[in-house]
Amino acid sequence: MSAIQENLKKSNIEYASTFDKGHLPLPPGKKYLVLTCMDARIDPAAALGIDLGDAHVIRNAGASARDALRSIVISQQLLGTREIVLVKHTGCGMLTFSNDDARALVKQNLGQSAAAEVAGLDFLPFGDLEKAVREDVEFLRGSGVVITESEGQGSQAGGGRVSGWVYEVESGKVREVV
Amino acid sequence: MSAIQENLKKSNIEYASTFDKGHLPLPPGKKYLVLTCMDARIDPAAALGIDLGDAHVIRNAGASARDALRSIVISQQLLGTREIVLVKHTGCGMLTFSNDDARALVKQNLGQSAAAEVAGLDFLPFGDLEKAVREDVEFLRGSGVVITESEGQGSQAGGGRVSGWVYEVESGKVREVV
Repeated sequence: MSAIQENLKKSNIEYASTFDKGHLPLPPGKKYLVLTCMDARIDPAAALGIDLGDAHVIRNAGASARDALRSIVISQQLLGTREIVLVKHTGCGMLTFSNDDARALVKQNLGQSAAAEVAGLDFLPFGDLEKAVREDVEFLRGSGVVITESEGQGSQAGGGRVSGWVYEVESGKVREVV
Repeated sequence: MSAIQENLKKSNIEYASTFDKGHLPLPPGKKYLVLTCMDARIDPAAALGIDLGDAHVIRNAGASARDALRSIVISQQLLGTREIVLVKHTGCGMLTFSNDDARALVKQNLGQSAAAEVAGLDFLPFGDLEKAVREDVEFLRGSGVVITESEGQGSQAGGGRVSGWVYEVESGKVREVV
């Protein structure tokens, strides 16, 4: 067992020893989902005030809405969430490379056949953080398979809204973009 | 601004007021990634002992390795992670429906054109929890674009290993499957 696995087991024994949330139901209590990045410097529960049982939390490289589409449809259609909170962040790894860079690394580290496997894969990097937030929110609002409302309607009707935020890994602060 | 957005802003002001981790670097300090489900009842940092900055955390519906492949390749190739910890959980929503069920719901709630959009989408549900853990670990170990080692090698070499776990939402406990 690796040091990482030993830490997991040990930490979990402590967590479970005081665990008292075994009664929580499957559907998120506050009917929303948070989509954010896999970045190691983000603790969504603590930084965004998500209590256990409140919300689905989807995380992938760059908080990509396209990449999260399957999960979002399941969250909404099977488990009744209505509001989407999209959070990208400063210092994101996705700002630091291109698809060509990623493919070259795969080829260098894993060889030609691995490179062929990812030749058609879009790693979904982006060059401008706030623009990427806006574009992903637009993508969700424009999707025929995602429940959203336009900003004005959402503010009034109380359902189906989607907002886009930036989390600052330097300060721990969020700011709303759209 | 919705109640959810107001809660986010208020909670974050409190979080940021004592935040002192602005110095953490982009690559995960412990060079591992956790892949788990978006389920609202899982707090990976607390339940699995992940300190801020230690690990990438990828979350999607069902902790699907296939769905996470783009993020895993980025995590390994661009940001140097080597160990993968896969955690599925009891009471998972993915155990409760089939692809046909999901497509029927989309059609009922969003209409025919939305149904057409998801006609080719695999929602990746599964019928047996432990089997799904084993299959996803096998998928990762067999993938040409994921850095892994066989179990024996991994235990000795200290890198590239992948383990599969079940988290019990009823007790807060994890157990290793593979």
